[in-house]
Amino acid sequence: MRNSFGHIFTLTTFGESHGRAVGGIVDGMPPMIDVDFGFIQNELDRRKPGQSDITTQRKEADKVEFLSGIFNGKTTGTPIAFIVWNSDQRSNDYDNLKDVFRPSHADFTYFKKYGIRDYRGGGRASARESVARVVGGALAKLVLNKLRITVKAFTSKVGNVEFKDHYSKIDFNLIDTNPVRCPDLNVAEKMINLIQQVKNEGDTIGGIISCVISNCPVGLGEPQFSKFHADLGGAMLGINAAKGFEYGMGFNGVENRGSQMNDLFINNNGNISTNTNFSGGVQGGITNGQDVFFRVAFKPVATILKPQSTIDKNGVTKVLNINGRHDPCVLPRAVPIVEAMAAMVVLDHMLLNNAYKL
Amino acid sequence: MRNSFGHIFTLTTFGESHGRAVGGIVDGMPPMIDVDFGFIQNELDRRKPGQSDITTQRKEADKVEFLSGIFNGKTTGTPIAFIVWNSDQRSNDYDNLKDVFRPSHADFTYFKKYGIRDYRGGGRASARESVARVVGGALAKLVLNKLRITVKAFTSKVGNVEFKDHYSKIDFNLIDTNPVRCPDLNVAEKMINLIQQVKNEGDTIGGIISCVISNCPVGLGEPQFSKFHADLGGAMLGINAAKGFEYGMGFNGVENRGSQMNDLFINNNGNISTNTNFSGGVQGGITNGQDVFFRVAFKPVATILKPQSTIDKNGVTKVLNINGRHDPCVLPRAVPIVEAMAAMVVLDHMLLNNAYKL
Amino acid sequence: MRNSFGHIFTLTTFGESHGRAVGGIVDGMPPMIDVDFGFIQNELDRRKPGQSDITTQRKEADKVEFLSGIFNGKTTGTPIAFIVWNSDQRSNDYDNLKDVFRPSHADFTYFKKYGIRDYRGGGRASARESVARVVGGALAKLVLNKLRITVKAFTSKVGNVEFKDHYSKIDFNLIDTNPVRCPDLNVAEKMINLIQQVKNEGDTIGGIISCVISNCPVGLGEPQFSKFHADLGGAMLGINAAKGFEYGMGFNGVENRGSQMNDLFINNNGNISTNTNFSGGVQGGITNGQDVFFRVAFKPVATILKPQSTIDKNGVTKVLNINGRHDPCVLPRAVPIVEAMAAMVVLDHMLLNNAYKL
Amino acid sequence: MRNSFGHIFTLTTFGESHGRAVGGIVDGMPPMIDVDFGFIQNELDRRKPGQSDITTQRKEADKVEFLSGIFNGKTTGTPIAFIVWNSDQRSNDYDNLKDVFRPSHADFTYFKKYGIRDYRGGGRASARESVARVVGGALAKLVLNKLRITVKAFTSKVGNVEFKDHYSKIDFNLIDTNPVRCPDLNVAEKMINLIQQVKNEGDTIGGIISCVISNCPVGLGEPQFSKFHADLGGAMLGINAAKGFEYGMGFNGVENRGSQMNDLFINNNGNISTNTNFSGGVQGGITNGQDVFFRVAFKPVATILKPQSTIDKNGVTKVLNINGRHDPCVLPRAVPIVEAMAAMVVLDHMLLNNAYKL
Repeated sequence: MRNSFGHIFTLTTFGESHGRAVGGIVDGMPPMIDVDFGFIQNELDRRKPGQSDITTQRKEADKVEFLSGIFNGKTTGTPIAFIVWNSDQRSNDYDNLKDVFRPSHADFTYFKKYGIRDYRGGGRASARESVARVVGGALAKLVLNKLRITVKAFTSKVGNVEFKDHYSKIDFNLIDTNPVRCPDLNVAEKMINLIQQVKNEGDTIGGIISCVISNCPVGLGEPQFSKFHADLGGAMLGINAAKGFEYGMGFNGVENRGSQMNDLFINNNGNISTNTNFSGGVQGGITNGQDVFFRVAFKPVATILKPQSTIDKNGVTKVLNINGRHDPCVLPRAVPIVEAMAAMVVLDHMLLNNAYKL
Repeated sequence: MRNSFGHIFTLTTFGESHGRAVGGIVDGMPPMIDVDFGFIQNELDRRKPGQSDITTQRKEADKVEFLSGIFNGKTTGTPIAFIVWNSDQRSNDYDNLKDVFRPSHADFTYFKKYGIRDYRGGGRASARESVARVVGGALAKLVLNKLRITVKAFTSKVGNVEFKDHYSKIDFNLIDTNPVRCPDLNVAEKMINLIQQVKNEGDTIGGIISCVISNCPVGLGEPQFSKFHADLGGAMLGINAAKGFEYGMGFNGVENRGSQMNDLFINNNGNISTNTNFSGGVQGGITNGQDVFFRVAFKPVATILKPQSTIDKNGVTKVLNINGRHDPCVLPRAVPIVEAMAAMVVLDHMLLNNAYKL
Repeated sequence: MRNSFGHIFTLTTFGESHGRAVGGIVDGMPPMIDVDFGFIQNELDRRKPGQSDITTQRKEADKVEFLSGIFNGKTTGTPIAFIVWNSDQRSNDYDNLKDVFRPSHADFTYFKKYGIRDYRGGGRASARESVARVVGGALAKLVLNKLRITVKAFTSKVGNVEFKDHYSKIDFNLIDTNPVRCPDLNVAEKMINLIQQVKNEGDTIGGIISCVISNCPVGLGEPQFSKFHADLGGAMLGINAAKGFEYGMGFNGVENRGSQMNDLFINNNGNISTNTNFSGGVQGGITNGQDVFFRVAFKPVATILKPQSTIDKNGVTKVLNINGRHDPCVLPRAVPIVEAMAAMVVLDHMLLNNAYKL
Repeated sequence: MRNSFGHIFTLTTFGESHGRAVGGIVDGMPPMIDVDFGFIQNELDRRKPGQSDITTQRKEADKVEFLSGIFNGKTTGTPIAFIVWNSDQRSNDYDNLKDVFRPSHADFTYFKKYGIRDYRGGGRASARESVARVVGGALAKLVLNKLRITVKAFTSKVGNVEFKDHYSKIDFNLIDTNPVRCPDLNVAEKMINLIQQVKNEGDTIGGIISCVISNCPVGLGEPQFSKFHADLGGAMLGINAAKGFEYGMGFNGVENRGSQMNDLFINNNGNISTNTNFSGGVQGGITNGQDVFFRVAFKPVATILKPQSTIDKNGVTKVLNINGRHDPCVLPRAVPIVEAMAAMVVLDHMLLNNAYKL
């Protein structure tokens, strides 16, 4: 249960990796928004498998079809259902996993929770579910685009290769020019090399995705239990393989003094602004009009091509050998997912904040 | 809005720092649970101001009164309302803050969001609201205690002073033996010294609280959008001054390979267990029966006693001088708050998970 | 559980009849609303016991105290907690009910559901809980009053004495001029006589409360599952003793033809209106700008002063004799409760409907 | 927004009458339930258009396809998405309705609320949406069937032709033996004759559907704001054309005395039962183990084939002539919809009630 996300703008998702389709229903979409189908498909193409050497070589067309909620090219305010048919499934690849629990996967926990699981391709726990998130996020972005609010994520760390520049220095146009989606081409090259090396070893590697929300309105966030950053963090942690979330100075800020970290208010030609942004655009759980800046940690993918010891559902020890086509690093394809979740949080909180206006 | 927390076991909170009272309503409490009032008051005393030299010197009795939902010493399954009267308020201390925005506080964002704010002592944004969270958590713990599920938080870092031992080495009984709530007495002493030094400078310092949930049942967590760690993370990030959350290997794990990070399943005398716990007790968003382990980053308190430049609501630059009694470091008093939020997440997810059982 | 009502404007209630207090928390109240405390207390006085000969003779001061969310006489957008202390309790009156199930009361079902119940005065199932609803409704009315939206309920039937005029003929100012709250003074007198007669017999009687929402904005209601009249109906049915809800032509309309029941649209000086209002102001689940009109059926109170046969929790047959001070008819005091629930539904849906406005 | 129904067992629906498809997502379905696809399709066939002379003559195959959540014939506990493709659309039939508001339809209110509407066939407001409800209800019934809980609805009134027997006298097997779905064949014939006559006049007629839930467990319902009958009533009122809901004695009970209406408890061979069931199986908002009995009023369909005066969106008066294939009476096809909504409420409340069990 709890396959719905959001308060007012909500996304409900469905689908298993090797079922017939994945998709979802967006409810609470504002009416009268022009739907740019090319834009939505492009967002989906950014997460598509097989897009480069450093992602899985599975080929899926991942063409999204819309079933409702759009009339004459505009949203109608009614639920928008969409579907992406599954294809290129080699379900037989998974027969050997039927009774065996892959280490650090969801096999064991789903089996214990539900008593049954679709073991093919990870079933419901597969990252393929994120297709629906990207479509939901693309719909949210249609609204944000109109309001010139931008959500830009990028790979800031792979293994020990890190992009350390302050976000204000970034040329966001460079992100999608390279397969790892890092805005610094030199660092990107090092990241790609590392992923290639790891891939050749049959291993996987983790990393960090950073994200900047620019032109975010003041006043988003609902204390005490839907503070903007708390909803944002919950959204990010729900992405497969996410292990941590921080915003503003985050974990690195804990060594500092208050006198070093406070963002002083300034009068910026009549607008109240701050001279620094250690807060990451959120104070007291409410956006303050500065850029929202956050980072998400991703573990190395659990599926490695090296033999591993495990047990089956009868408790018998087995050696697990996984073949097939897998991502050596989730980050390049997770960038659009991070953006999608963030875009939905922003729009959802805009709608919540609107509710007050009498 | 959104002052309610949880799915089935819910806590709704109210109250401003200098209003008449703070408190809340717990709904969804299982019936027939013996209420140990001394235990609840003790939890509250752990977050009380004035408990040591390194916390604020404000004195508040913080005695909790229960108004409903308990009959003959047992819970009845109906809402449990509780109240803690405010006292020892020196509201006049705050007159100078009426029209001025304290840096990195919620003054500005509340004013912009609502058009009005109770400026006395931080109003609704004050950490005083956490009184209600601690009581809610204590009620949840009454149930967890019966089931021998423990939630133990501790201060693992203050500034650059860090306690680095693996959680499995910790003697949890030592946590409350020192005012900073670190289970290593040597490290605790260094932390206390650092906080004293910072306090003497009129400054503040951040840190990290770690937490271990032991004997947590298998199967808690509701993919895709209420994964156990996502709800846990959202809960932690909603605590005042929290800037980051990670579980298992978290941010530090991103540099590792999958082959180093996977937790191999083992048959532990008929029970399925893992030989390591890099996952932090959660796989695929569902608890796997291992200890749940997570960390929360807290920024240095924004209220410092040094002069700061700021502006007032008319955009005029002012020099801000804050006096009064404030915490130089939130961590010692935030330890019971982290536990409270975690306890509520565990119980709430137990109730959600029960719903399936026909 | 589920002691919270509403989507955006929410009311969470607590309290048992003979506990320390009843009260609640309103969340989602728009900020910057002037709080007219006299108006709120007056609403509460309208439901107070002991206000006339035809209601229970219990005396409760029922003075409401506000604990939060109001600053300098205005709402702040933060939760508004309020409390009404219980008094004039004669809990010993209920000792004989400890182990016995009163017919058609909630004694048996609460006991079976929770395994425990506060038997004094009906505990949580007592109509006393409606104190919190009236306060919540009064807060909602503060907003509606500003917008000249009115919610007027009245007693339209007691037993077989019925007020049958079309709602458009009513002088709403007459409602509160008589203790039964019927706008026709002749009918009111007959109702009062009937209630007196029933009371003298130690018996009780049912009836119908009608309600008109005037100047209700167009566009309220969220299909498919929060249609305006469905939320309204759910709210009304949740009032103690309610057995039915209908709006517009309701049950009486089922005998008619479509050609008799359709409300034809007319151009009313540039405003789109209808020439009749059989629909009751709602079409397709959304308000159409006409008056919303609905009726709620209330059963006779289950507490009668005549001996009744029943059983105790051990299954032993008993004769039940109830003494004490009870309402022979709930309707006079339920009028403000119906209004309160309706006012909250209207405001809640206004806030929901606002969310769309970008 | 708010196209999701339920607390734990939830149904989210999508689709317009002349869009590509209608369907939904069921979340919170218990795992390990055998899926009887024939049963589900049969439920859908019961609401299908064209099934008899007294329903619309539109032909739609209405074959349901499942896309997720089922593995090897069993539910997996993950979301169950399903789809029914639209067909036999004659969208051109609706060109004349593009700018005109049909009386007592949702045309005007959708246009005012959203600023845009899919005018073809009623769009989102079409009764076609109920396809998804019937599938959701059929899934719920799979669980109820296992537990021998039955939900049986029938047509009890059409116009002034009424079936008045007490529900305990009904042979439920007779309901589906006649096209109007009334368990008394003589009354059924009169109802059918009346509908035929009304149809021949180009008019429509309303009626009442009654429903009995047998073998309903004790303890379902969550006071104060999700009482069993309040959730049930809200669910029924959300069905297209519903104008009223009552349970137990309902509106007819208001004329009675408490001494006539109280259900006396009896010891029925060790089980606590009642000697009458005026309460309709619910006391204090919680089921008491007796049959739940309720009735729903439906207005005559707004679409009549007689000329009507109306206005267009520019305020110009028009004469409206509707052709096409429409239901002269919704009741025969609404019977399975009432059952579906009731079945979902029962299962949802069973899951909620389970949550308490530690």
